[in-house]
Amino acid sequence: MKRNLLLTPGPTQVPAQLCEVLGRPIIHHRTPQFQDNIKQVVEGLKEIFQTKNDIYILTSSGSGAMEAAVVNLLSPNDKAIAVDGGKFGERWVELCQTYGARTIVHKVEWGKAPSASQIKSLLEANPDTKAVFITLAETSTGVTPDVKAIGEVVSKTPAVLVVDAVSGLAVQEIKTDEWHCDIVVSGSHKGLMLPPGLAFVSASAKAIDLINKCATPRYYFDLRECKKAMEKTDTPFTPAIGIMIALVESLNMIKKDGLNNMFVRYAHLARAVRAGCKAIGLELFPDETCATNVLTAVKVPANIDGEKLTKTMRDTYGITFAGGQDHLKGKVIRMAHMGSLDEYDILTGLACLEKVLFQMGHKFELGSALTAAQKVLNNKS
Amino acid sequence: MKRNLLLTPGPTQVPAQLCEVLGRPIIHHRTPQFQDNIKQVVEGLKEIFQTKNDIYILTSSGSGAMEAAVVNLLSPNDKAIAVDGGKFGERWVELCQTYGARTIVHKVEWGKAPSASQIKSLLEANPDTKAVFITLAETSTGVTPDVKAIGEVVSKTPAVLVVDAVSGLAVQEIKTDEWHCDIVVSGSHKGLMLPPGLAFVSASAKAIDLINKCATPRYYFDLRECKKAMEKTDTPFTPAIGIMIALVESLNMIKKDGLNNMFVRYAHLARAVRAGCKAIGLELFPDETCATNVLTAVKVPANIDGEKLTKTMRDTYGITFAGGQDHLKGKVIRMAHMGSLDEYDILTGLACLEKVLFQMGHKFELGSALTAAQKVLNNKS
Repeated sequence: MKRNLLLTPGPTQVPAQLCEVLGRPIIHHRTPQFQDNIKQVVEGLKEIFQTKNDIYILTSSGSGAMEAAVVNLLSPNDKAIAVDGGKFGERWVELCQTYGARTIVHKVEWGKAPSASQIKSLLEANPDTKAVFITLAETSTGVTPDVKAIGEVVSKTPAVLVVDAVSGLAVQEIKTDEWHCDIVVSGSHKGLMLPPGLAFVSASAKAIDLINKCATPRYYFDLRECKKAMEKTDTPFTPAIGIMIALVESLNMIKKDGLNNMFVRYAHLARAVRAGCKAIGLELFPDETCATNVLTAVKVPANIDGEKLTKTMRDTYGITFAGGQDHLKGKVIRMAHMGSLDEYDILTGLACLEKVLFQMGHKFELGSALTAAQKVLNNKS
Repeated sequence: MKRNLLLTPGPTQVPAQLCEVLGRPIIHHRTPQFQDNIKQVVEGLKEIFQTKNDIYILTSSGSGAMEAAVVNLLSPNDKAIAVDGGKFGERWVELCQTYGARTIVHKVEWGKAPSASQIKSLLEANPDTKAVFITLAETSTGVTPDVKAIGEVVSKTPAVLVVDAVSGLAVQEIKTDEWHCDIVVSGSHKGLMLPPGLAFVSASAKAIDLINKCATPRYYFDLRECKKAMEKTDTPFTPAIGIMIALVESLNMIKKDGLNNMFVRYAHLARAVRAGCKAIGLELFPDETCATNVLTAVKVPANIDGEKLTKTMRDTYGITFAGGQDHLKGKVIRMAHMGSLDEYDILTGLACLEKVLFQMGHKFELGSALTAAQKVLNNKS
């Protein structure tokens, strides 16, 4: 009878309406019926990406879409700038290096954001840069950069801007076209509220030009083949049909709620979580000025074992938070506020956090996180 | 109220029990709960692969697992032999060529099987061959080769044998270890009765040795990382969690029925389909001596438009067959007998085939395909 509440930054909670669709029989993918499905998915995603660019559908996790970006843009020895301020920025670096790019690693302290001016300087010093890789919502640290300002800078150079929006899409604003994001990658299991298995790539004309010139061998993730297939409302390989069918419903749900209303809602939930955490003495991990609304990362008090905390919450009470990654293991906990999560889920998460922290000897007034969050939640101004 | 019966060689019909599991809420993948899931999946797959080798889990379609085999085994300029006797053999060739292998293409006429002796000669002429790529069930033609004999030949050389068992696994016999299949790849949406999205790779010690020496850059499909992760009962990237959860149930269903009983059942269904097709004047496309039990490919009568035939069956009656691919478009139809399909599904498929062929003017006694199939189905000797 234990709850199974995912407050993790991916996979996120799959709402009951989408579970029901995922349990329906599938259809064959080379049929007019499925072509209609592809069409609806592409149209819906274009609204969420806020783009007129091509959208390609891949069957993989989000990292597969990241690989697609790298192997389709960078030829061996091409120069790339990869912003590394956390686990997912690190993934851009690893991908660029794996495929032989001369990779300028722009290290940013965990919890801080890269600035557009830093990227401008790097581009001026390296005018032959082919691509700049950034992360919309760095879930390992809870940071979001000023993508708009970075896009402005990159757009004035021959380089393309590549944004990992795996976690951020449909949770925080990304204006793909207006902000000059040439490639944006995302996945099914974050803001889109579905199980992992599908990934998406949007590509601007500037990106497509580079894709067509790129000499790196690729096959499964060849975006040229994706483009050809998409023009026939098809995918080059058998797609994750079940998730594709449910995605139509997910996109309808988002459309009905309204994308902007969702951004407002997540921002509101984020404020409530932060107020709740502060009320029981938990400090925000990232700089507040660059904190994303996708999730909240807070420091675990020095006398508390963060790994034991999240383990107890999950195994005893069925509420799953994420712990810290790499050097933050045991020192940080992370609570998502995205997808289908509402204010009652957030209060549930905070209640469980209070309970276990209290059991573990952290000193605070029981109920104070809930009270603080409730006050924010009921103040919509 | 129309039926939605998939008699296609992938995706296959997802039985109601598995639809139900696919509709359940998911859990987080970095938990002891999901580790238990991974453990059960790996154990179950080892029984079906008939192997003690490592099994790696990828989130991709079957073609992703094929790419994984190529990029992990072949360094640029390595020599490979790829058997091309249909659409999926062709995929091996394309993959090997894409990644810069010196590829010896062993062309086999569509409908015929490669022989072990031909492969032996090729290996003798090319003793520096690193890998031989074959297809267990070539669904474009309905052919299966003598994998055991080919394995015997390849095992006596330094080359590894790579088998595309995407369609064949759990439908027809493959004894991975006994037949010396160094790499076997498969997917979730064929014999395993689930939607597409997960792929599997088994790797022998001989293959792992080559994987560790391989110089081709790879990241998402890096089997070295899969091995490391698997040793911690983990996956390198977020897996298709929903399908993984349902796969435990699928493997239990197969175990309960008994793998060998399933092979017998599919062979029985295949005989019935062939008898039914013959009774209405449809000729088997492949040589009967090398026909797989995964599906039956038959020639469409000269006066019948095969594309219109399958389209009408699907759009008017809800019964989906596959048409022919490439030069066989409109000339061949393909009916699967795998996964959860039983004799009543087969009779349903034949009944619909009779109905539409009759409407289209093909001359035969209505009911004769059903009668012939029914006679085979009721003669279990």
